[in-house]
Amino acid sequence: MKSYRKELRFNTKKRRELINITPEIENCLDESGIKEGLLLCNAMHITASIFINDNESGLHDDFEKWLEKLAPEKPYSQYKHNGFEDNADAHLKRTIMGREVVVAITNGKLDFGPWEQIFYGEFDGKRSKRVLVKIIGE
Amino acid sequence: MKSYRKELRFNTKKRRELINITPEIENCLDESGIKEGLLLCNAMHITASIFINDNESGLHDDFEKWLEKLAPEKPYSQYKHNGFEDNADAHLKRTIMGREVVVAITNGKLDFGPWEQIFYGEFDGKRSKRVLVKIIGE
Amino acid sequence: MKSYRKELRFNTKKRRELINITPEIENCLDESGIKEGLLLCNAMHITASIFINDNESGLHDDFEKWLEKLAPEKPYSQYKHNGFEDNADAHLKRTIMGREVVVAITNGKLDFGPWEQIFYGEFDGKRSKRVLVKIIGE
Repeated sequence: MKSYRKELRFNTKKRRELINITPEIENCLDESGIKEGLLLCNAMHITASIFINDNESGLHDDFEKWLEKLAPEKPYSQYKHNGFEDNADAHLKRTIMGREVVVAITNGKLDFGPWEQIFYGEFDGKRSKRVLVKIIGE
Repeated sequence: MKSYRKELRFNTKKRRELINITPEIENCLDESGIKEGLLLCNAMHITASIFINDNESGLHDDFEKWLEKLAPEKPYSQYKHNGFEDNADAHLKRTIMGREVVVAITNGKLDFGPWEQIFYGEFDGKRSKRVLVKIIGE
Repeated sequence: MKSYRKELRFNTKKRRELINITPEIENCLDESGIKEGLLLCNAMHITASIFINDNESGLHDDFEKWLEKLAPEKPYSQYKHNGFEDNADAHLKRTIMGREVVVAITNGKLDFGPWEQIFYGEFDGKRSKRVLVKIIGE
């Protein structure tokens, strides 16, 4: 069994951003030399998400509006977590979007359907945050 | 390490359906001959879900009503994604329900609690869509 | 490839509780002797969750309030599942929080960011329920 590990770093300009990281993940897979196995990609911070969906800007706007409806940022005082912090909403938004994805590796490629793309979802940005890529297989 | 891959296909009659696919997944596992490892099952389309819950029709009605409350289908114009499409709600519903499950394989069986069953959740159906089953182990 | 399996048991005093199980998972990993691989931890019951977030009591109160807003326990009659049961809301809450986590194992440790902790989320407690830990690797 081979294993591979890499950290990616992101420092967004806005509090919330969705970034297509599929090319970086494909680079990791190439670097690993693994042809058959499983790839785990997870946010290492608990106010960010890794998820798979569509690379379509209208949908990304819909996600922003929808997450603000389900777990609004303000007023900050509505959350007990916001004593010394202001990011309780980011913990909730990341919960909806998910911490991680597991992707099948087949013939050295991400085994994806036609529209699947991997996104980093930042919900409390403007600082350096990390994403883990771990691949096991042969 | 052994690995196994199979695609399942679904073409639902309705826009939204929940289908118990546990028997198909068990067939895949038998076919793989893998006794110890991990099984990944994921929707290959971004308006569908694979999730684990109860095989109880009342609960499935509750899911339908609940998802329509959290991410309503109509009016279509509430979503920017719905320029050429009408399925933005399906992307959101699948986000709540999840893209994938990872299941432990022990002694050649799905290592499940008493009520765990695997479901395909279709939120934009009436066309052929695929599900991936990938198993790694020994 | 090595594999390891263990069941953990929980019997909460309240209907809903969030329990930090990171130490138990670390014990499993030590016991497994696995240094490189993937760890799956999942609820074996469909009204409970395993998730990764912050070990901060204010945030846990926020989760309780938020989940009650998105999927309220009462009135029980709002859910079709509640014919012989009263736990439909627990199925929905667990869906939001997620069934499982997959964690990278690197150098014999949980490969975590600074604040990542693993929680058991019970949404229909006061009875004995199980959590599965499965590790594969070398």
